[in-house]
Amino acid sequence: MSDFLLNQGIIISIILGAVGLGYAVFLIKQIMASSAGNDAMKRVAAAIQEGAKAYLRRQVTSVSIIAVIITILLFIWKRSAPVPVGFIIGAVCSMIAGFIGMRVAVVANVRTTQAATVGHLQALRVAFNGGAVTGLLVVGLALLSVALFYIVMSAGGHQAHAIDSLVGLALGASLVSVFARLGGGIYTKAADVGADLVGKNENALDEDDPRNPATIADNVGDNVGDCAGMAADVFETYAVTLIGALLIASLSKFGDATQAALMYPFLIGGISIVGAVLGILWVNIRKGGATALLMQGVGISAVVTAVLAYPVTQALFGKAEKLPFTANALYFTAIIGLVLTWLVVLITNYYTSTEHAPVRKIAKASETGHATNIIAGISIGNYATALPVLLICASIAGGYMLAGLYGIAIAVMSMLSMAGIIVSLDAFGPITDNAGGIAVMSELPKEVRKITDELDAVGNTMKAVTKGYAIASAGVAALVLFGSFYLELEKHLGHVVEFSLKDPSVIIGLFIGGLLPFLFTAMSMNAVGNAAGAVVQEVRRQISAKPGILTGKDTPEYATCVDIVTKAALREMILPALLPIIGVLGVGWGVSFLQSNHFLGHTALGGMLMGTIVTGLFLGLSMTSAGGAWDNAKKYIEEGNHGGKGSDAHKAAVTGDTVGDPYKDTSGPAINPMIKVVNIVAILVIPLLF
Amino acid sequence: MSDFLLNQGIIISIILGAVGLGYAVFLIKQIMASSAGNDAMKRVAAAIQEGAKAYLRRQVTSVSIIAVIITILLFIWKRSAPVPVGFIIGAVCSMIAGFIGMRVAVVANVRTTQAATVGHLQALRVAFNGGAVTGLLVVGLALLSVALFYIVMSAGGHQAHAIDSLVGLALGASLVSVFARLGGGIYTKAADVGADLVGKNENALDEDDPRNPATIADNVGDNVGDCAGMAADVFETYAVTLIGALLIASLSKFGDATQAALMYPFLIGGISIVGAVLGILWVNIRKGGATALLMQGVGISAVVTAVLAYPVTQALFGKAEKLPFTANALYFTAIIGLVLTWLVVLITNYYTSTEHAPVRKIAKASETGHATNIIAGISIGNYATALPVLLICASIAGGYMLAGLYGIAIAVMSMLSMAGIIVSLDAFGPITDNAGGIAVMSELPKEVRKITDELDAVGNTMKAVTKGYAIASAGVAALVLFGSFYLELEKHLGHVVEFSLKDPSVIIGLFIGGLLPFLFTAMSMNAVGNAAGAVVQEVRRQISAKPGILTGKDTPEYATCVDIVTKAALREMILPALLPIIGVLGVGWGVSFLQSNHFLGHTALGGMLMGTIVTGLFLGLSMTSAGGAWDNAKKYIEEGNHGGKGSDAHKAAVTGDTVGDPYKDTSGPAINPMIKVVNIVAILVIPLLF
Repeated sequence: MSDFLLNQGIIISIILGAVGLGYAVFLIKQIMASSAGNDAMKRVAAAIQEGAKAYLRRQVTSVSIIAVIITILLFIWKRSAPVPVGFIIGAVCSMIAGFIGMRVAVVANVRTTQAATVGHLQALRVAFNGGAVTGLLVVGLALLSVALFYIVMSAGGHQAHAIDSLVGLALGASLVSVFARLGGGIYTKAADVGADLVGKNENALDEDDPRNPATIADNVGDNVGDCAGMAADVFETYAVTLIGALLIASLSKFGDATQAALMYPFLIGGISIVGAVLGILWVNIRKGGATALLMQGVGISAVVTAVLAYPVTQALFGKAEKLPFTANALYFTAIIGLVLTWLVVLITNYYTSTEHAPVRKIAKASETGHATNIIAGISIGNYATALPVLLICASIAGGYMLAGLYGIAIAVMSMLSMAGIIVSLDAFGPITDNAGGIAVMSELPKEVRKITDELDAVGNTMKAVTKGYAIASAGVAALVLFGSFYLELEKHLGHVVEFSLKDPSVIIGLFIGGLLPFLFTAMSMNAVGNAAGAVVQEVRRQISAKPGILTGKDTPEYATCVDIVTKAALREMILPALLPIIGVLGVGWGVSFLQSNHFLGHTALGGMLMGTIVTGLFLGLSMTSAGGAWDNAKKYIEEGNHGGKGSDAHKAAVTGDTVGDPYKDTSGPAINPMIKVVNIVAILVIPLLF
Repeated sequence: MSDFLLNQGIIISIILGAVGLGYAVFLIKQIMASSAGNDAMKRVAAAIQEGAKAYLRRQVTSVSIIAVIITILLFIWKRSAPVPVGFIIGAVCSMIAGFIGMRVAVVANVRTTQAATVGHLQALRVAFNGGAVTGLLVVGLALLSVALFYIVMSAGGHQAHAIDSLVGLALGASLVSVFARLGGGIYTKAADVGADLVGKNENALDEDDPRNPATIADNVGDNVGDCAGMAADVFETYAVTLIGALLIASLSKFGDATQAALMYPFLIGGISIVGAVLGILWVNIRKGGATALLMQGVGISAVVTAVLAYPVTQALFGKAEKLPFTANALYFTAIIGLVLTWLVVLITNYYTSTEHAPVRKIAKASETGHATNIIAGISIGNYATALPVLLICASIAGGYMLAGLYGIAIAVMSMLSMAGIIVSLDAFGPITDNAGGIAVMSELPKEVRKITDELDAVGNTMKAVTKGYAIASAGVAALVLFGSFYLELEKHLGHVVEFSLKDPSVIIGLFIGGLLPFLFTAMSMNAVGNAAGAVVQEVRRQISAKPGILTGKDTPEYATCVDIVTKAALREMILPALLPIIGVLGVGWGVSFLQSNHFLGHTALGGMLMGTIVTGLFLGLSMTSAGGAWDNAKKYIEEGNHGGKGSDAHKAAVTGDTVGDPYKDTSGPAINPMIKVVNIVAILVIPLLF
């Protein structure tokens, strides 16, 4: 079996990836076959679908233009196909993962509403399967694209060449992902904040009230942000982690065991798809409460992956000699990744669920006003960084002690291998959110909305939890990329390089790198503010032009709002998305220049990468946690605590929720791909600079 | 002259330090001699004085208990006097700087009010001279204490021994400073937030309305936070920078030039006192607008220091041989510090003054509500980190290129040498703030309040500017300490140590170190929330017990509020203040333990120090800038923009101002001493751990 896996491991993983995609197609057919409800529901759903499609079409156009320019630049520079072709494949697959995932979400939403007229469990399954399509697409496409590209590129026997050009693929995936996260994030929150500001605050309209001209845009936003953005983001982290692991395997001088070390990450990806499929099946077959069922699904995926990984590890490494680690040690690094995933999920849940102290503290602080709500939320967000960071440290220590840098890479790969089931949970959120919106807008009975509301609350926690997972895994994945960076640099220079904190170049690099996430969040928060301002003005214009809108006599022009948010989001995403590239190139050229004057060296670039990882991880964790906690503090008050809906505490909580929107859905999650773009660009420009 | 300076440099600097203290005594007498106004004013002033004294007495008691415990532990551990005695001297001087400064501030406040009945310029001078006392005390005491202790300790010829034990002094100063910053910061903001929440929001009382039971506590807070806390903080940065420069001079193997390198930082400190005295005199002699006069004072101090530094540098280093730098190069590092000070002042002013775009952007965002005000403020705060950090990078690069690690130390020392005049500006703020409060409470005519209000607005900008200076200098000072740490560690181990980013121990250290400022701000924000909650409850209790308070029929029990804030602040400051010590000891022991298992090494401790510096600098800069910008956005609206006082925009701006309070006056500035405690404790525990 050992030889079989060594030779055919990549084929096996391709087959398993295809199985995952096949199951996704099956789920799509199943969803399409279910009822889409009555005409009113179909009308609302069609408006959301249209808005989402229109936005994604334009986003694809904008991003494609930038991607084509970069491809041409890469081609001119490299004078060979692999890197630019890799770039295109990465970019296209990242877009596809987001695009199809979102298309499924916008047909699943109305079907979830319809299923909710039948019962709780039926609605849960439609929504979950809609999300599962995205989850399976993400892992299936990532595994397939990397594996196929790797096979094609190494066909001539140039394995090292193949791995180099995978960096192009990683860049394509990451760059699209930054745009998707930012564009989608700005869209969804500009629409949400804008709709809330004029709707709830100025005109006392409820959430999803059809009289609010920004309602459709708000619902579109859930799909383009939470669904398409998240899918592109996790696709990217997965592909980049896999590529990083391959880079480390090939650069680590493992001798005869190199082939095994190259196959292992592919196989972990493959077997975890089996785990994801079984987990999804479980949720479809069993009965029970939503949260319990979903958590069981995650548990099953993890256990299946852990069990299958053991024989694979033994077969590949059981007889390998002269390696700095044993097969068992390596197996444990994979287990570390699974355990880290589980613990991060638990911790994020603690900080963002209405059941626990942090959210309740924010809710209580809302009693004394807007300001104390904000202070409490920011404080909780900062607290929430502690345990994940300590766990990440423990995982790094464990992975490195067991199997060196490669051990860290395998721990991250096994963490990412859970993406299939975890993204299913996340993409479930916007579907139930939309389902509730459709129920209100098409005036279905209150019981339907009650079911979708319950599912929506579950979806909120799941979304927060997935974000914790995404940022934690992105942080460790970036460390793997940093490892690839210095191995690549040393290979290029032909000697060992140290990045010592005693070297002022490294310190300057750390500061400049640390600055990037701060500037990036400043820009993206600002972008949401600008885009939301445009929505507010448009809604005010419509209401003053046709006062009948508020009484229900006139129909608002939903499409104009959708159009305005689309334009604003695309305009505002460009600058922050390019910041990481500009940052690396700027520092890189500065370094080149100063190096010729014998001062700053390549060590400054290394310091910069690490600086970005450090502050990026903290900002990402604290912003996503604070945002989730604010959101649920509002929900907790709406459940009737501290005066309930309409009380002063509730108003303060709405403020916190609104501040939390760009925290948790724009700036916070967009840091994930951003820190990886910084690292990938650095790897890519090594031969240019030194 | 060269030999004279080499042998007597320290005596000269002691004489100049004494001159500074003498001028401070002269200013105190002058202030005491001026009129304290009518009986009503004296009554109010007495209440503030009493509250401030009561608080500081208790703070000194609490901190003394902790200090005595640490002294005993140090003595048991070291079994010799120098380190514990140094610790006591540092702690006592830090307390004295804060204590006397605050005592002067609480007699200057009412005299400023009285002077305001005469005219603008008269009031400016009393307030400024009150602040100048603190400024002179800070630099005079810091220079004298370090110099005298150094002379005594090196009397037996054990110069190396003397420098080692100065670390004890640094620890004493830093630890007291953390407590003073935190205790004072929590006190001032708990009182302020508490008074605003019940006063302005619930009962529509104006700022400083005598019917608000928390008014006196609020005024007391200005003194214990902005005045005593800032004084202890800058005293600490100054002393620690001087000590760090001495450590680097003695460990850098400068050969024959070591003595010159040791005298140079003392002399820079000495001549800058001449600059400070002349700058203060200028403000007292000339006429003109407040801002212009104050900025001229700063300019004169800087120019005098720069001019005097040139001959000193030439005398000490002009003939030195075999040094890795020339006298001119070293002189330029000193100029770098002065230029950095000036630029940081300009940049902070840009981000926090009502004259410029950032504050106006926040004011405009307030039109659409509380949430957009907060989002805009956080975004501005993050933007505001960019330029200072890039300038710090440029200064590090410049200092290092010109004269190595010692060059960086001299740049920081010259930056800190400006503390005399800069702290004068800062301590001026709470005096004018109080003066306004006293004018309202003792019902003086409106023209008086108008003058104090104008001065207060100037004071607000000055406070913000000083905070930018304090955090930027603290960041670079911490780098100097990091340099001392690794030189000390290498001396102890007897071999060179690298802290490479390729080493997982360093990465883990960076993450844990990066976590400390996040946890620290989480705890301190939380502490303000808790303490403010206690004030709110007490005020509500008083008002419901005696409803006559609101109509002015009953007198509120001011003292009870003062008492409650005092207790709450002292209780809440303990845990965050001990966090940096616990953090270093925890990581240190963890490292010791794991090192015996051949994993983590002393490199983790180095990574941790740097991690704290990086995230601490960013958090400190962004929080103090955002806080200042929010404060002035409110002021800008109150000047009649965006609807003026009472408008919805104003309400939103009040929320931002309240969130900004703990940002700019508690958590943000307390990060300064905190990152230095981390580094000093690390230096101190080297022989314990390795």
